[in-house]
Amino acid sequence: MNIHIPALDFDAMERVRTRQDTLLKPKGALGRLESLSIQLAGMTGKTDWLPVRRAVIVFAADHGVMAHQVSTVPQAITAYMVEQFLFGKAAINVLARQMNARLTVVDAGVNAALNLSSTNHARFVAGKIADGTADFTQSPAMTQAQAEQALQLGAQVAAEEIANGLDVLVLGEMGIGNTTAASAIIAAVTGRSAAETTGRGTGVDDATLNHKIRLIEAALHVHAPANENTLVKLGGFEIGAMAGAMLYAANQRIPVLVDGLICTAAALIAQQINPDVTHYLIASHCGAEPGHQIALAHLGLIPMLSLEMRLGEGTGAVLALPILEAAMRTLNEMGTLHIG
Amino acid sequence: MNIHIPALDFDAMERVRTRQDTLLKPKGALGRLESLSIQLAGMTGKTDWLPVRRAVIVFAADHGVMAHQVSTVPQAITAYMVEQFLFGKAAINVLARQMNARLTVVDAGVNAALNLSSTNHARFVAGKIADGTADFTQSPAMTQAQAEQALQLGAQVAAEEIANGLDVLVLGEMGIGNTTAASAIIAAVTGRSAAETTGRGTGVDDATLNHKIRLIEAALHVHAPANENTLVKLGGFEIGAMAGAMLYAANQRIPVLVDGLICTAAALIAQQINPDVTHYLIASHCGAEPGHQIALAHLGLIPMLSLEMRLGEGTGAVLALPILEAAMRTLNEMGTLHIG
Repeated sequence: MNIHIPALDFDAMERVRTRQDTLLKPKGALGRLESLSIQLAGMTGKTDWLPVRRAVIVFAADHGVMAHQVSTVPQAITAYMVEQFLFGKAAINVLARQMNARLTVVDAGVNAALNLSSTNHARFVAGKIADGTADFTQSPAMTQAQAEQALQLGAQVAAEEIANGLDVLVLGEMGIGNTTAASAIIAAVTGRSAAETTGRGTGVDDATLNHKIRLIEAALHVHAPANENTLVKLGGFEIGAMAGAMLYAANQRIPVLVDGLICTAAALIAQQINPDVTHYLIASHCGAEPGHQIALAHLGLIPMLSLEMRLGEGTGAVLALPILEAAMRTLNEMGTLHIG
Repeated sequence: MNIHIPALDFDAMERVRTRQDTLLKPKGALGRLESLSIQLAGMTGKTDWLPVRRAVIVFAADHGVMAHQVSTVPQAITAYMVEQFLFGKAAINVLARQMNARLTVVDAGVNAALNLSSTNHARFVAGKIADGTADFTQSPAMTQAQAEQALQLGAQVAAEEIANGLDVLVLGEMGIGNTTAASAIIAAVTGRSAAETTGRGTGVDDATLNHKIRLIEAALHVHAPANENTLVKLGGFEIGAMAGAMLYAANQRIPVLVDGLICTAAALIAQQINPDVTHYLIASHCGAEPGHQIALAHLGLIPMLSLEMRLGEGTGAVLALPILEAAMRTLNEMGTLHIG
């Protein structure tokens, strides 16, 4: 994917910086709210931007590495959870509703025929690229053509959301086994060891954790240099699609809230394709997975929420929406300081 | 102040814990949202509690220690900011509005006659105990009778808010020089050195920071043992009033969101009076002041937001309201897991 990412609007950023220093508070006292307001103006080119029209996109796909039992949870749960998103019963349904965000669920490569309800609580996009990736410990997770398809799928769904009217995009995912793929990507891109980037996912025991680490180490050896063409080598379809959505949103100057470990791994893939994408990404929370902090640091992103969450689905990212709103409301609604 | 604090409702907590483990997610995957839902049920005795009726109380007062120029900002700004709260122009006005919280501003001891508008954007309570505290480097900051008055003032305003219908209480403060009082309280109660608990407040330079530290060290020596009767010895009126509000809210099983450095110092004062108060306190953010983390650790509270804020007014605490709501909504609105 070859995509242009516009420079931040430095004039708008400077206007916001100047205004922040006139507001009814000591300089810098609103901390990250101030820096966020400057960044958001740079992204959108607007000093009066507000995150009114909010969309969450959850991309779902399966992973060939599940042949090695890297999760406590069976692969069939990916399809089951996609169905639950459409029934309106998952955590992201509850939180998107609370935050007045609309929800789209995308099958990017679930390894099952989905049982879709006729009364969906979310928009559904049938974008299945294949029935899950190949096992990345044996071969590349996908072909070059499939990687391009995944990126284009993400870009297309983001484009549809933007066409419907959008101020801010929240990304999330579902895919049993995808903490293994994400930890592998983070090790590959940052050069850190699998032992450092790999955690317990849904809650595996010590033996399975060590098994995950050994599988990733072996795969990084097979695919060396794994910091090139990483999406093809390690997967997955939902990760590529999130990267494509990030790149397209950045092209359209739409701020993107990044969720947990897997979404942050997708940001590393997007960064490989166009490093300027990071200017349009906002980190939300720092999850419980050890690779998450490593990936965020590599991207130069600093999370705002510490909630020890490790669910994915966009649940951490959607919780940061009120903070973006607060950053812009304080900028625009506070009085200025007049000391006589 | 002698006040009963009821035990947490362990039955309600157990019902929530059991329900959390049936929800459509791996056990524990919602992290702090899960533990919060358990705590909130324990506080309120209700498993379907929601933070619908929200009140922020900002207590304002001046500090005698300002005789030593411990701030870059003149003392007159305390009164000026109280007037701005009533004009609706300060950061806490903007954020309380965004969060659908009502706002009350209390003069607990501002060293000025206030110029009150006839069209107030917040409820105002005239509770002035004195024109600021005495200089705690020379003498106790207040008398025993004044300390009791400050606690009772906070309890009374909290009682009025609860009588108006209240689900959650957010506390904040305004008082030029009160980071010096708060850092002194934190050093006194936790036994850490003034150098560890003292920061730059509104942004003082190295010389003023060292001056603050030396003043606090000297005061702790004058008032030894400073971990007894700390409110009388170090002040201030707004800190005592916040402590009284916390104690009364806990007595009434109302969860309290704690703001930054000064509000957390008030929690230490409340804890001296009745240690059980901490069961009803929820830490919101960890501010930029070094003493804040020390005080939170002493209280056993873990903050959720990392926004480098250092404004006070309740601005950090009010930003945590959506997280409390998210904790209860996920508990009650998610589906349960049925794997066939």
